[in-house]
Amino acid sequence: MRIPMNFNAGPASLPLAALERAKSELLDFAGTGISVMEHSHRGKQYEAVHDEAIGLLRELLAIPNEYEVLVLQGGASLEFATIPMNFLPPGASADHIVTGAWSEKAHAEATAWAAVAGAKVRVAASTKETGYTRVARAEEAQIDETAAYVHFASNETIHGVQYADLPRFGNAPLVCDMSSDFLSRKVDISAFSLIYGGAQKNIGPSGVTVVIARSDFIDRGRRDLPAILQYRAHAKANSLLNTPPTFGVYLMRNVLAWLKDEGGLEAIERRNRAKADELYGVLGALNGFYRCPVQPESRSVMNVVFRLSNEDMEKRFLAEAEKNAMIGLKGHRSVGGIRASLYNAVEPAWVSALASFMKEFARRSG
Amino acid sequence: MRIPMNFNAGPASLPLAALERAKSELLDFAGTGISVMEHSHRGKQYEAVHDEAIGLLRELLAIPNEYEVLVLQGGASLEFATIPMNFLPPGASADHIVTGAWSEKAHAEATAWAAVAGAKVRVAASTKETGYTRVARAEEAQIDETAAYVHFASNETIHGVQYADLPRFGNAPLVCDMSSDFLSRKVDISAFSLIYGGAQKNIGPSGVTVVIARSDFIDRGRRDLPAILQYRAHAKANSLLNTPPTFGVYLMRNVLAWLKDEGGLEAIERRNRAKADELYGVLGALNGFYRCPVQPESRSVMNVVFRLSNEDMEKRFLAEAEKNAMIGLKGHRSVGGIRASLYNAVEPAWVSALASFMKEFARRSG
Repeated sequence: MRIPMNFNAGPASLPLAALERAKSELLDFAGTGISVMEHSHRGKQYEAVHDEAIGLLRELLAIPNEYEVLVLQGGASLEFATIPMNFLPPGASADHIVTGAWSEKAHAEATAWAAVAGAKVRVAASTKETGYTRVARAEEAQIDETAAYVHFASNETIHGVQYADLPRFGNAPLVCDMSSDFLSRKVDISAFSLIYGGAQKNIGPSGVTVVIARSDFIDRGRRDLPAILQYRAHAKANSLLNTPPTFGVYLMRNVLAWLKDEGGLEAIERRNRAKADELYGVLGALNGFYRCPVQPESRSVMNVVFRLSNEDMEKRFLAEAEKNAMIGLKGHRSVGGIRASLYNAVEPAWVSALASFMKEFARRSG
Repeated sequence: MRIPMNFNAGPASLPLAALERAKSELLDFAGTGISVMEHSHRGKQYEAVHDEAIGLLRELLAIPNEYEVLVLQGGASLEFATIPMNFLPPGASADHIVTGAWSEKAHAEATAWAAVAGAKVRVAASTKETGYTRVARAEEAQIDETAAYVHFASNETIHGVQYADLPRFGNAPLVCDMSSDFLSRKVDISAFSLIYGGAQKNIGPSGVTVVIARSDFIDRGRRDLPAILQYRAHAKANSLLNTPPTFGVYLMRNVLAWLKDEGGLEAIERRNRAKADELYGVLGALNGFYRCPVQPESRSVMNVVFRLSNEDMEKRFLAEAEKNAMIGLKGHRSVGGIRASLYNAVEPAWVSALASFMKEFARRSG
């Protein structure tokens, strides 16, 4: 078992095999005598890595041919702006589903752009008044069927809410921020016009953003923006429009190769589900001592959030967890409490150790 | 001497010491038992690296206090768009100096944005009709003294032209793309309103962009854009507005620490100048066999470009150079010929080896 047990929300734990591979060839990539970071992005050695990473994404996610797979920079936060820049021309309107801090931020950025562009952004559904303790059901959303797209987040890291089954919101093109559960389970890509996510949860290190989008949707984007902000320009250049974050893409390749070795999405989904079930099981059994604010059907498999009876107790919990080599368990500063992030690279043994610690801590302190 | 001798134009050779440091602690950063890539960007371990990297930039470049130092993503190419987005509001006008492929691209992106925003972009000087064989002198530029800013590139990697002394263009705020000679020599930062550059030449791996800008200039930027596109938002958040490319910033720290150990900018400038002098000396001595298209006063210290009598000869030159473990010497596909990039991490011994090879090749083939 790797120590410390890293429950960070992102950047997060990475598979040891992916890191060891990087270490072993850091100074001598593929027998070339130089680091992968020192290779030209136009050279055959890097291009092989680049194409392998994109190919592994296609294979693992079973991405249909009519979709482009882009590796970009700037994080999901830059996509919050570039999505409306591309797909919200003057006069158009987009619908947003707001179910936590990240989809709230996506909405705010789109709204800023809409004001600049003379477009419109609507909130079609929000669970803010519940304190973001559940996702918004498709039935409760007031969808504008003429919307340029409907935007939602599949998982919210800060509030620990996730769509157990990915929803459809009417017939408008569906755009999804999948940053925090990308590659954690099987997904029907064909239901979406565009999916995006920062890499730093399940895909690789921070500094790489993955965008998967239908070619015909990309083609609808504005043509008058600077090229670097147009998805079509990146698609046309196979994500080599400008210098990509080569080391990040290389490490993503290592992570994806590991995921394939582990059995792909079906296997990792089972493993992720079992990890989450173990923690939610403890929360259920010790309900009263621990309290999970999230409604049962919206509880995230990726980010398990819970509270103790008071903040002093939470501080003691975190301090003792750290003494037991469990790190990254502090809830986001905006909400407090405890958060255990259980991304793909988080070992089941760590989760069992955390579950045992939670039981023991409750026994001693209850 | 490290082998192969890597003359790549970027991503380029990195200091061996910076890479060895990264390798030695790749799985265990600062005794924490996890990789620097696995640390939270909000944790004290990463923040120390982040602040050290920014502090080293400040120290090495003697950046005055009234300047912000930002570490961003997206490459210089994204700055081509975000600079006009911030500083070219409706009705405003910017002047561009065009001296090669990169400043041409910066001009094209700014022009696209200006059309979207209802602003204007002028070409105040261009050396295109010379085939970009020299920089544009300040005296020949038709500067609009009311311009929001004047944009130029200090060095052009593809055409191998560089400003030996950094120019002033009138009194408008000066914005400089310094991607390819950042940290290669001393610079009077106070002459500029904004300087930017991709890291992948002298600063670190690709995926990190450095922006240095006067606080009061940043403050002039548009306030209605999505926050992620506003420099002020990044400045306010100490470049932690969203998850930074943590490994890239870490490696930049390693490169900057190496540069400081080497004696800083004064020492590296001497070393860089000596490397370039050696190659230009060979080109001068063997003029006729080799031909440098760039006018003497504009010849780049970073990218030495030259031609042989015909393309077959150039192919043979490249093939034989590679047999002698010299890589990355092919000129950019848009211009052809030979290019030796001599960034900070390029060892003087490599340049001497290249100079010897050039003499020997000319003797055998002349």
